[in-house]
Amino acid sequence: MRKFRYHTPGTAPATLVPLPEQAGCTPKLRLISYDAHSFHDREIETIDELLDSVEGSKVNWINVDGLGDVETLRKLGEHFRIHPLALEDVFNTGQRPHLDEYEDQLFIVLQMVYQEEKGELVFEQMSVFLGDRYVITIQEDPGDIFEPIRKRLREGRGNARFMRSDYLAYTLIDAAVDQYFPLLEALGDSIECMEEELLEDPTREKLRQIHEFRQALAQLRRAIWPTREVLTRLLRDESGLVAEKTKPFLRDCLDHVLAIVDLLESYRDITTSFMDLYVSSLSMRTNEIMRVLTIVSSVFIPLTFIVGLYGMNFADMPELHWKFGYPAILLIMLAVAIGMIMFFKRKNWL
Amino acid sequence: MRKFRYHTPGTAPATLVPLPEQAGCTPKLRLISYDAHSFHDREIETIDELLDSVEGSKVNWINVDGLGDVETLRKLGEHFRIHPLALEDVFNTGQRPHLDEYEDQLFIVLQMVYQEEKGELVFEQMSVFLGDRYVITIQEDPGDIFEPIRKRLREGRGNARFMRSDYLAYTLIDAAVDQYFPLLEALGDSIECMEEELLEDPTREKLRQIHEFRQALAQLRRAIWPTREVLTRLLRDESGLVAEKTKPFLRDCLDHVLAIVDLLESYRDITTSFMDLYVSSLSMRTNEIMRVLTIVSSVFIPLTFIVGLYGMNFADMPELHWKFGYPAILLIMLAVAIGMIMFFKRKNWL
Amino acid sequence: MRKFRYHTPGTAPATLVPLPEQAGCTPKLRLISYDAHSFHDREIETIDELLDSVEGSKVNWINVDGLGDVETLRKLGEHFRIHPLALEDVFNTGQRPHLDEYEDQLFIVLQMVYQEEKGELVFEQMSVFLGDRYVITIQEDPGDIFEPIRKRLREGRGNARFMRSDYLAYTLIDAAVDQYFPLLEALGDSIECMEEELLEDPTREKLRQIHEFRQALAQLRRAIWPTREVLTRLLRDESGLVAEKTKPFLRDCLDHVLAIVDLLESYRDITTSFMDLYVSSLSMRTNEIMRVLTIVSSVFIPLTFIVGLYGMNFADMPELHWKFGYPAILLIMLAVAIGMIMFFKRKNWL
Amino acid sequence: MRKFRYHTPGTAPATLVPLPEQAGCTPKLRLISYDAHSFHDREIETIDELLDSVEGSKVNWINVDGLGDVETLRKLGEHFRIHPLALEDVFNTGQRPHLDEYEDQLFIVLQMVYQEEKGELVFEQMSVFLGDRYVITIQEDPGDIFEPIRKRLREGRGNARFMRSDYLAYTLIDAAVDQYFPLLEALGDSIECMEEELLEDPTREKLRQIHEFRQALAQLRRAIWPTREVLTRLLRDESGLVAEKTKPFLRDCLDHVLAIVDLLESYRDITTSFMDLYVSSLSMRTNEIMRVLTIVSSVFIPLTFIVGLYGMNFADMPELHWKFGYPAILLIMLAVAIGMIMFFKRKNWL
Amino acid sequence: MRKFRYHTPGTAPATLVPLPEQAGCTPKLRLISYDAHSFHDREIETIDELLDSVEGSKVNWINVDGLGDVETLRKLGEHFRIHPLALEDVFNTGQRPHLDEYEDQLFIVLQMVYQEEKGELVFEQMSVFLGDRYVITIQEDPGDIFEPIRKRLREGRGNARFMRSDYLAYTLIDAAVDQYFPLLEALGDSIECMEEELLEDPTREKLRQIHEFRQALAQLRRAIWPTREVLTRLLRDESGLVAEKTKPFLRDCLDHVLAIVDLLESYRDITTSFMDLYVSSLSMRTNEIMRVLTIVSSVFIPLTFIVGLYGMNFADMPELHWKFGYPAILLIMLAVAIGMIMFFKRKNWL
Repeated sequence: MRKFRYHTPGTAPATLVPLPEQAGCTPKLRLISYDAHSFHDREIETIDELLDSVEGSKVNWINVDGLGDVETLRKLGEHFRIHPLALEDVFNTGQRPHLDEYEDQLFIVLQMVYQEEKGELVFEQMSVFLGDRYVITIQEDPGDIFEPIRKRLREGRGNARFMRSDYLAYTLIDAAVDQYFPLLEALGDSIECMEEELLEDPTREKLRQIHEFRQALAQLRRAIWPTREVLTRLLRDESGLVAEKTKPFLRDCLDHVLAIVDLLESYRDITTSFMDLYVSSLSMRTNEIMRVLTIVSSVFIPLTFIVGLYGMNFADMPELHWKFGYPAILLIMLAVAIGMIMFFKRKNWL
Repeated sequence: MRKFRYHTPGTAPATLVPLPEQAGCTPKLRLISYDAHSFHDREIETIDELLDSVEGSKVNWINVDGLGDVETLRKLGEHFRIHPLALEDVFNTGQRPHLDEYEDQLFIVLQMVYQEEKGELVFEQMSVFLGDRYVITIQEDPGDIFEPIRKRLREGRGNARFMRSDYLAYTLIDAAVDQYFPLLEALGDSIECMEEELLEDPTREKLRQIHEFRQALAQLRRAIWPTREVLTRLLRDESGLVAEKTKPFLRDCLDHVLAIVDLLESYRDITTSFMDLYVSSLSMRTNEIMRVLTIVSSVFIPLTFIVGLYGMNFADMPELHWKFGYPAILLIMLAVAIGMIMFFKRKNWL
Repeated sequence: MRKFRYHTPGTAPATLVPLPEQAGCTPKLRLISYDAHSFHDREIETIDELLDSVEGSKVNWINVDGLGDVETLRKLGEHFRIHPLALEDVFNTGQRPHLDEYEDQLFIVLQMVYQEEKGELVFEQMSVFLGDRYVITIQEDPGDIFEPIRKRLREGRGNARFMRSDYLAYTLIDAAVDQYFPLLEALGDSIECMEEELLEDPTREKLRQIHEFRQALAQLRRAIWPTREVLTRLLRDESGLVAEKTKPFLRDCLDHVLAIVDLLESYRDITTSFMDLYVSSLSMRTNEIMRVLTIVSSVFIPLTFIVGLYGMNFADMPELHWKFGYPAILLIMLAVAIGMIMFFKRKNWL
Repeated sequence: MRKFRYHTPGTAPATLVPLPEQAGCTPKLRLISYDAHSFHDREIETIDELLDSVEGSKVNWINVDGLGDVETLRKLGEHFRIHPLALEDVFNTGQRPHLDEYEDQLFIVLQMVYQEEKGELVFEQMSVFLGDRYVITIQEDPGDIFEPIRKRLREGRGNARFMRSDYLAYTLIDAAVDQYFPLLEALGDSIECMEEELLEDPTREKLRQIHEFRQALAQLRRAIWPTREVLTRLLRDESGLVAEKTKPFLRDCLDHVLAIVDLLESYRDITTSFMDLYVSSLSMRTNEIMRVLTIVSSVFIPLTFIVGLYGMNFADMPELHWKFGYPAILLIMLAVAIGMIMFFKRKNWL
Repeated sequence: MRKFRYHTPGTAPATLVPLPEQAGCTPKLRLISYDAHSFHDREIETIDELLDSVEGSKVNWINVDGLGDVETLRKLGEHFRIHPLALEDVFNTGQRPHLDEYEDQLFIVLQMVYQEEKGELVFEQMSVFLGDRYVITIQEDPGDIFEPIRKRLREGRGNARFMRSDYLAYTLIDAAVDQYFPLLEALGDSIECMEEELLEDPTREKLRQIHEFRQALAQLRRAIWPTREVLTRLLRDESGLVAEKTKPFLRDCLDHVLAIVDLLESYRDITTSFMDLYVSSLSMRTNEIMRVLTIVSSVFIPLTFIVGLYGMNFADMPELHWKFGYPAILLIMLAVAIGMIMFFKRKNWL
């Protein structure tokens, strides 16, 4: 289950608390500044040095990896006039994706998703501050899904370097969204595999798998669905930070999100229908088992009664001394058995 | 399951990748130009030749079959100033139907549907670019659902040739939508057939069929539902590309889409209710089987006990030596059996 | 299932195809013209004669019964400038109720409902064209639900003859809507009857009935629900064809539609809950059957073992020769049986 | 089930038909006129006398009990210029609560609810006409939920007599709404009682009760839900009949309606979950019964086979003559029984 | 179940009735007045004294604990011109959270939640009146979730004392909302624990727990969901009481509410899916039990018949006297048993 971080009730609003498992670790800082003609990419040790290096005339992309140190981010926040509540959201990971508008600045929270080795889903919060000449990205863990973006910027391919910070923010969001596709494809393959087996052999293990699929789909849906609104609000942006030229790209990204939601919905429908299949298939099996039991019992229990009858030790049982007694009783039992079997045939149970 | 094509995460936006299974195949090009007085229909080898043949004063319908060659479409895109992201959507088949508005151009994505020999549904993406004097249609595979439209244009019947490119686009969309009707009718017939059998004989095979119906309905719904929005947006078009005279036709097409959705909903309700019927019918059968088992067992098990009783070898069992012992015990057993049967009669189990 | 008529894919838009089962039959024509002072009611043979008889200064109600002849309706359409797509909808029966606005004319499609002798629901499409001085009604079959309206017009009772064509259209729609009430009442009675029986005796026949109820309710809902929108749109009419004075009547009709939908919803809830009742009641019965089986088996199987024990032929079984062996074993068996029965009593199974 | 009265299809709009069970009975009439300084309360025999007694300068509250006489209400309607369709709704009881706006007059329909001795819910329609200086209330049966209101008016407590007819209408609506609370409380208590018992002992009687709860909740919901809209429309009244000063009271009444709907929803959730509990609890019991049957059968059936084996009459069975044959076989059977029991222990079935 | 207090039907609007269990107890009064430079915190005995101590130039926070005395609150209401209906809502605890706008005053009702020792949820109504220079909070019981707020005010940390009454109201609402988090975390932990056990061992105790989880989630949802609307309406406040500077804080609080609702939804999905798991897991167990019964019965019942056969006492049964009769019959029985077991193996039941 995705964990939601929250403050102890009673804490003052906008209190910053570092991630407990990272407390004390210095975050990794990286500054990329570029315009159409130049590109600088530096890893920088201290926040002061970084803030000095920001070049006002270029697009500055500041990336912070790690939430262990409150001070660094407070300084960053002061320099770029970030609202304390936005900073609080950066530290309280597990937020729903959302967009907050502040004066001259947009604050975007997204959830990136990875699949761990054991197949478990891991979510990581990405916080993005978009200003006129800068983009600040803050991640929980040192990850590297942005390497292709840096490469494109470095090589100056496409129109990436000719555009402004809003386009950079778009490429970052797009990168976060595109991660969902391979994950969904893998999930879709597993689901398709399961479909065949379910009707034949409904085991407890499969029940567990269906349950896990549903949990995973619900988690993914909760992480991606609000992203839709983030993009819709970027598209009808009123802050002037998003250029008209960038909007078709955002619209395209929105289409991707809708496609992901669409796929998730269709997977959810299928797994819901799996649960029905499972139960029906199990009922069918129980029905078959009962049928076998009933047929065997109904054929042999009356016969056992008959043989018991002539096993009685009464002094005076004429049949026992009749010459054809034994073969007659055998024939009678055969008739009873055949009658029973015909009854079941007619009932369509055989 | 409808496959969704997506780029490897990290690919630059608007990258064009040919369909892998068609990679290298040259797409088939066809240009139809017409006005009220003339009609030209040519299959053309190269894209350059085609672009030279476009006549500005007529309605030009360019049809491209096949997505194996990026270069052809890039040239087409440059000539008609198509946005790179729209071209990307053309290649990334499996898109949800949608409409994007660009300056002087509308980009429409639709899903056509066919039924394969084995009954499986196949979806094919149709991309339509609608401009002032041209319509560009791009299909995945060489298909021919447009032949009746070409014929009507060639013969100049109706008012098709007197109208502009928006009416042509309408006839194309209408053709794609109308394909759903015979498919739905076939599906409806299968469903009606099943209804009767389900109550009588709930087999595992039928469970599988219900599941497949539901999957098919869900797929069709996902393909047709967003078409509704495409048409709604064409109807309140602000680009000036859609003439008032064409709108009643689009409205009619929208009515068809709504009728299809309506039918799909009603089929979905029925198949959902089939699942209930299946489970109830199965429970009913299990109940009947249990009843037979219980009646047979309850009648004969006590009798078997009695005969076992007098099969004991105790030295001193007075009944065994009583003259009427045997007939008496037979009468007692008859009474027990009749008592049991009357009990079940009263319980309404017989 | 309500059948939806559609054109073979590839047919030109607005193609008129007569109903196959009526092809060639001449439709029955009837013209009623009236104003406050006069009333004329004629059955007319040919469409030309009818069009000649239309009196511009009065309200003209043209009724056409039967969809076998395309030519008649084409002439009617030309005379009253009916859009070809509207005429197409007249012939493609099974349309969802809807309202299309054309210049100086409203086109309304409704579904009337009848119950056949065997209880099956039959839907019939009624197409209404409402213009300034005329109302045209086109029905599939010669029916007569409008006789009370004609009678009221003929006798000049109420304010019917003082009002215009819009009021006539209202009375027609109202007549179509009011047909649903007796049908719903009959349905409601059947449902109430069923309720009692279901808990006592869940048979397969009742399962079929529940299923048929649900289908009927779904069909009725699909036919009446869109009528709501037709009336809402008539109420905020912008064509000027609907007078303010008529609106309270339309509002009243809308209230009737809402009451019908309300009833349908409540019936649907009840039948859904019937399905639950059915399954629960069946489970309860299976449970009871199992209980009887278990009690009988559990009491007698151990006893049968004991009597079998002393039916063994071992040479040396001391109990067999003990004087009180037989009575002792009888007592033991009694104790076992009583023990078992007390166990079941404590479990509350008896 | 709440009965819906409707006209035979074909009846002219706005036809008034008295309630069949009251036909011919004269309705009871009562006129209360008051202002800040005076209060008159009279029961009056005839409608003409009543209309003469209306005092234009005061607030007049006319209450009519009984729908057996059309003439009385027609005269009332003519005097206060009531629309014939509104009068029709008064007679066609079982209407959904709704509000119709007429010139200078609001027409409100509400459903009051009572609980009969046997616990059955009875709904009664209350029709309210609100004009500038008058309120007319029309009820199906002589009831007396308005006595506290009359008393407050008579005693002149609170600000009731200082306010106008809209405040009087509010107190009437409020009285009708407040009746739902004690009913809901009783229902809630029954539900809470049931909760405990359901897990322990799922009987058929409880199934019936759950079903009845759900029906009752659905009926209450259908009666109270549209009241929400009536109040909302009163709050944004455009007729000028509702004073600003009265609105906080109406808002409060709306809050009550929302609280009732809220409670109904929560009860519905609980009863739905009861159905699940019932089925699960029943499955659990069936499972337990099966377990007992399986354990008893599985332990004794193999033993019975063994004792049967040595009950055979073969001439040459060496074991029978072995000295320790009998004790050995007893030991073997003990071992089998213990083995079986241990198997069930390990399976956690014991 | 959360209890809803309501008046006996017929009570005059805005009647104040003390909480029966607190009737006669004097409420505890506390007045805190502060501005940027000063801070006074007093517990005051009588309401008159308190009203005298209110300082118009500062922010005054009046807290009332206990609803046993009507007079105190009536005086408070008169002094701050509180609408009688708002006061009525204060006493009728169990209200849905809502916001009412009065002239110069906002009235907010919230539900605080605690968990009792036994794990039961307890809701307490908090009523807040927000005016220009004052905030009045009224609670049912003496609680202390506001101590951290008082401490922050006392110590003058943060910007709390520099802001106005609207910010104080925000901190109070925030405190009430933040209480939900630890509760939800505990609930989430219990749910996660259960997940594992459910598949392995579906007991009746777990069924009860699932049911209790669902009830608790439904109660929490009903208490927190309307809080969303309270905050939304505060954000688009038109009374001028909420400063722009406070809005980002309210937006943050709204984000918390959304996160809580989000979590509740996800828990609800999981518990719903638990119910499915429970039933499926139970079916699986019943299926397994049936399998054991069927296998044991089907193997031994035919064998028991055979041994019974040769236990018959017919005078003339040749097999009994055949030398190899006994070993032959043993072999036959072995063959039957093996055949049966192979049949079950092939059916995959073993």
